[in-house]
Amino acid sequence: MFFVRTAPCVLLALWITTSHADEGMWTFNNFPVDKVQKAYGFRPDQAWLDHVRISSVRLTGASGCSAAFVSPRGLVQTNHHCARRCIQDLSTPQSDLAAAGFYAREEEDETRCPGLEVNQLIDISDVTDRVTKALAGKDGPAFAAALRAERANIASECAGKDDNLRCDVISLYSGGVHNLYKYRRYQDVRLVFAPEGPIAFFGGDPDNFEFPRYDFDLSYLRVYSDGRPLDTAKNFLRYSKTDVQPGDLTFTSGHPGSTDRLDTVVQLEFRRDVRLPRALIDSSEWRGILTEFSRKGPEQARIAEGRLFGVENSLKALKGQFYALVESSIVKDRAAAEKELRAKVDADPRLKAQYGAAWDDLQGVLSRSRQGLEERSFVGGEAFSSALFGHALTLVRYPVETKKSNELRLPEFSEASSPALRQRMFSTAPIYPELEKLRLTFSLTKMREALGPDHAFVRRVLGKKSPAQLATELVDGTKLADVGLRKQLLEGGQAAIDASNDPMIALARIVDADMRAVRKDVEENISAPLTKYTTQIAQARFQVYGESSYPDATFTLRISYGSVAGYVQDGKTIAPITMVAGLFERATGAAPYRLPESWIKAQPMLNPKQPFNFVTTNDIIGGNSGSPMVNKAGEIVGLVFDGNRQSLGGNFGYDGSTNRTIAVNVGLMREALAVVYSADRILRELDGN
Amino acid sequence: MFFVRTAPCVLLALWITTSHADEGMWTFNNFPVDKVQKAYGFRPDQAWLDHVRISSVRLTGASGCSAAFVSPRGLVQTNHHCARRCIQDLSTPQSDLAAAGFYAREEEDETRCPGLEVNQLIDISDVTDRVTKALAGKDGPAFAAALRAERANIASECAGKDDNLRCDVISLYSGGVHNLYKYRRYQDVRLVFAPEGPIAFFGGDPDNFEFPRYDFDLSYLRVYSDGRPLDTAKNFLRYSKTDVQPGDLTFTSGHPGSTDRLDTVVQLEFRRDVRLPRALIDSSEWRGILTEFSRKGPEQARIAEGRLFGVENSLKALKGQFYALVESSIVKDRAAAEKELRAKVDADPRLKAQYGAAWDDLQGVLSRSRQGLEERSFVGGEAFSSALFGHALTLVRYPVETKKSNELRLPEFSEASSPALRQRMFSTAPIYPELEKLRLTFSLTKMREALGPDHAFVRRVLGKKSPAQLATELVDGTKLADVGLRKQLLEGGQAAIDASNDPMIALARIVDADMRAVRKDVEENISAPLTKYTTQIAQARFQVYGESSYPDATFTLRISYGSVAGYVQDGKTIAPITMVAGLFERATGAAPYRLPESWIKAQPMLNPKQPFNFVTTNDIIGGNSGSPMVNKAGEIVGLVFDGNRQSLGGNFGYDGSTNRTIAVNVGLMREALAVVYSADRILRELDGN
Repeated sequence: MFFVRTAPCVLLALWITTSHADEGMWTFNNFPVDKVQKAYGFRPDQAWLDHVRISSVRLTGASGCSAAFVSPRGLVQTNHHCARRCIQDLSTPQSDLAAAGFYAREEEDETRCPGLEVNQLIDISDVTDRVTKALAGKDGPAFAAALRAERANIASECAGKDDNLRCDVISLYSGGVHNLYKYRRYQDVRLVFAPEGPIAFFGGDPDNFEFPRYDFDLSYLRVYSDGRPLDTAKNFLRYSKTDVQPGDLTFTSGHPGSTDRLDTVVQLEFRRDVRLPRALIDSSEWRGILTEFSRKGPEQARIAEGRLFGVENSLKALKGQFYALVESSIVKDRAAAEKELRAKVDADPRLKAQYGAAWDDLQGVLSRSRQGLEERSFVGGEAFSSALFGHALTLVRYPVETKKSNELRLPEFSEASSPALRQRMFSTAPIYPELEKLRLTFSLTKMREALGPDHAFVRRVLGKKSPAQLATELVDGTKLADVGLRKQLLEGGQAAIDASNDPMIALARIVDADMRAVRKDVEENISAPLTKYTTQIAQARFQVYGESSYPDATFTLRISYGSVAGYVQDGKTIAPITMVAGLFERATGAAPYRLPESWIKAQPMLNPKQPFNFVTTNDIIGGNSGSPMVNKAGEIVGLVFDGNRQSLGGNFGYDGSTNRTIAVNVGLMREALAVVYSADRILRELDGN
Repeated sequence: MFFVRTAPCVLLALWITTSHADEGMWTFNNFPVDKVQKAYGFRPDQAWLDHVRISSVRLTGASGCSAAFVSPRGLVQTNHHCARRCIQDLSTPQSDLAAAGFYAREEEDETRCPGLEVNQLIDISDVTDRVTKALAGKDGPAFAAALRAERANIASECAGKDDNLRCDVISLYSGGVHNLYKYRRYQDVRLVFAPEGPIAFFGGDPDNFEFPRYDFDLSYLRVYSDGRPLDTAKNFLRYSKTDVQPGDLTFTSGHPGSTDRLDTVVQLEFRRDVRLPRALIDSSEWRGILTEFSRKGPEQARIAEGRLFGVENSLKALKGQFYALVESSIVKDRAAAEKELRAKVDADPRLKAQYGAAWDDLQGVLSRSRQGLEERSFVGGEAFSSALFGHALTLVRYPVETKKSNELRLPEFSEASSPALRQRMFSTAPIYPELEKLRLTFSLTKMREALGPDHAFVRRVLGKKSPAQLATELVDGTKLADVGLRKQLLEGGQAAIDASNDPMIALARIVDADMRAVRKDVEENISAPLTKYTTQIAQARFQVYGESSYPDATFTLRISYGSVAGYVQDGKTIAPITMVAGLFERATGAAPYRLPESWIKAQPMLNPKQPFNFVTTNDIIGGNSGSPMVNKAGEIVGLVFDGNRQSLGGNFGYDGSTNRTIAVNVGLMREALAVVYSADRILRELDGN
């Protein structure tokens, strides 16, 4: 599934020269209309682009996805897996909405999703000059501090005291361009409809990132403002009345999380040899723990389901990336391109003086980053996988940070971040002690494994206790699961924190200084020089080749174009569209191929030839889940929920021959809502009645 | 821990040119006495070598380790972790010997270890001519068939009808030399003494493959013959009365499992990019499952302990190999050496004609091997991780194979293998249904994940069932846990099998043909050409450089030399010997740093300066666990149980500056037996009284 679990903190973006048809995750202010016209004979005008843009939204907080308004009254269409955390947070041991689904028959039954936020992009403005001026002549620590401060100031000026605005400074084209993205922020988001988990994620992990596919991966949310459905009469996308055909032109409008399409060879090698193996090994063990934990009983299965899905999804994606780097010619091709570029730079004395050293300098940063990687990772926060610890750390830091002037704060305590912080801290989402212990035991165990039992930080944290002992004591002892207490401590200032003897707060106090030191070290000695050298390389590339196209993904709004098309896999042609009949053929009765009762009952009434899921050549990546797929008329023809396995290498480059986006077909949405769920209220609303 | 869980089926061995002092896992018939004399001023004579050789034994069946006779009455010294399976097989929910330890106060309390076999090497003879003649002019399938047949015939002639002999044809120096290893086989092996698990493996996984270390990783077994202790008056090693000092010369005599010190670059890359990541990912998930399974309760922890230890041990070893290949200069150095050798071969028309194509041919085999790797692995057997399935498959194949003439059988059904087969099939070791289901569910799930739910073999195995459903049905339905039934079916011939409706036998029937086909394909199209081309490369190397020294490890008896020496790690000097005081300082009270009661009570009586564990420069690898470490007098000064983390890269090459063998000190063994365990009977016997 193509979503990001938490909004990635992506500082860098490079521009990418498109060499493949349909390639590109384009910004709305730089969409290649000429190319599209040439390839497909259709030229979207500004009104078309504006309408699609303003109808598209981003889900953050308790999700990391894309979505769209689909009715005049704030109805939002996204994937089931994008609303999964909300669905789980609203579930109880007695009422498991993830399994049984949810449908608010009346508006008053719509239920608020804890911690979920919807962002609607209302303006993009250029702040490159201002940022460049602030960074001028700065290096290392000073560069990092200036960038952080200027971003905080711009964001704060933009949003003012209006908690309903969210302003982010986004660095594109590897720091060559800085844009201010201004969003309308909505924190009252309610669940309207979700099908049963087994049909939303039919085929489960075995079918994930695969095609042919049969997933009804849909949910509806509604944005409320001042307690009433938001008026979106001017900015919603209508459902098409006709299904797509092979060859049809399609657009997606969504928020791809991050890509590494212009990484240098040493960056790719670092990812292949260090970061990916590390992530694959640790995630695999965590997957095993969650799998077996889920077998303890139905309640354990229920509370672990979201995390198990998340880790399996990310494992499959990371494996795809790893094998793409190991088995394809990506690294070799990149090396050849790099060699050519460096030769051209070296051949020009002016370029050589300015940029010639950048590649070796970059390699130096990555070598340093390899040394002490485990320490930076675990001390930096990986050691404490616990929602309760996260709250404790925020509480300990809050009075310290908010006393500072805005531009000096850690970014998550800046004025602009205040609404998100409060949304998170005051969320009523349940925290499960058993799962907290499981997570914390695992992360503490990995810390001890990676750093060794004799490491000073490990000793400070564990003392004479085992990871399981400490995790149990902390989770059993803390009272921070209580929202009221968190509110009291957050608003009580330093005195309240000092007076607390909560064990989780005590741990946060003990490790705060070390965690800050590591973070500072990373910012100043890794992130800042990395930004500097990748910017130099990007500039060198620009000066040599003079071309530019779309920036690497940054979990900001992008538009892609493509068409409905099958592909060849292992010598077999795969048709681009599946049908309802295939679903029932594939069902076995055993999870993950077990159908919910509602679909079994509805089978006789469903059209077996109704198109179900389909694939297109659109260029997307994780974060694009929930993106509306629209036709030339700007109408929704599908709902993006995944990419095929060949798309996983898409992190490094786009291959139009096999890279495919997978979507739920609009006709299926209509038919299932009508026949399986009798969700007439939604159907009427979708058609603007 | 340096042991092999099951005897590896290593067909190939290359010779290795030693460039480092103390490097080498030498065969006893080619020990570099001159080198040793030059380096250490001591020249072992033939009697010395013969005595050490004949006192050394190998543990197979329910172990994969080294050991030695240490008394005139068949007493065998090995590691606790080498007898771990026996200790567990003799445990019950009421009496957990792995936790509590075991001491047979009288001889009649010594208890037979199910499935454990001791091999004593009594003769090595050269059969190179005979094998070479049989293989002459053969290629592909014919080559594979001829090699298998000639090995079976030689082994059969050697052992005759004597079940107490075991004869193996071992290919050394990449097939340049074939030796016949003749062993005395002992199947009545009884447990005499084992300390508590927590002191045998003090520090657990965090301290595994690390030093400084405090493990009392010792156990004693006794070999019986005709119901009486075996007479080993002429072939046992005495315990030294004095402890080693830094710089002392040490020898190990044991069975290193396998090494890859002369692999070509493509072989190293295949391991780095394909085999190791695959193993790391799957083993990590399995580790997570076992970890969480163990937390279900004390009985689950007890029955899973051995497997959890095994997977954690192997994971740490594999990670060491992976990072050695990724981060060290091994691959680069190998590439440079290979380039030089190939240039020399290409420069000589005769050599070029004979060997010039071998490297590219080898690469071709590995590329083919990469295609369909998952299918070959899972259909080949990985799909069915279950002792009960293993029994079922043996039963289904037994009447078919034993009808064939000896040289045409699958090797495990050859006449020479018959005693091992019966020992395995009639073992009374407990089989735990809950663990069987866990294993089988996991392996079936991995099969479906790797091959996809639409693969014909997956469909044939699973039908409409989920992996967990099928595993539960099979394990609950089969009666093969009953030794009597297995005996009846094995001896009942084809009719008995045909009449059986046992579900596990039914599954074995269904998959037998596919499994055989895959195995045949591997033998003919991968193993045979791999042997051919690596032999060519080895021959080319020999012709160009004219040198030879020791062959790659083959789980056959080898001797290494070295000395007690510390090393430098992360800029810190590590002293070579730890002391009793350090154990008590390191103990925290929480597993894996929790001491058993016996040691806590004994602390006041123990000499705090008593040397505990120590490190030497001896060159060993997995399989060497349990090796005796002897001094110039041929007396035991230590018991090998591990290597340090730097030794893990030893699979690819030896680096004497940091590669260290870790041993239990002889003085500690004496003191603990006397003070902690009051094991006077053993102490008296060790000193020949």
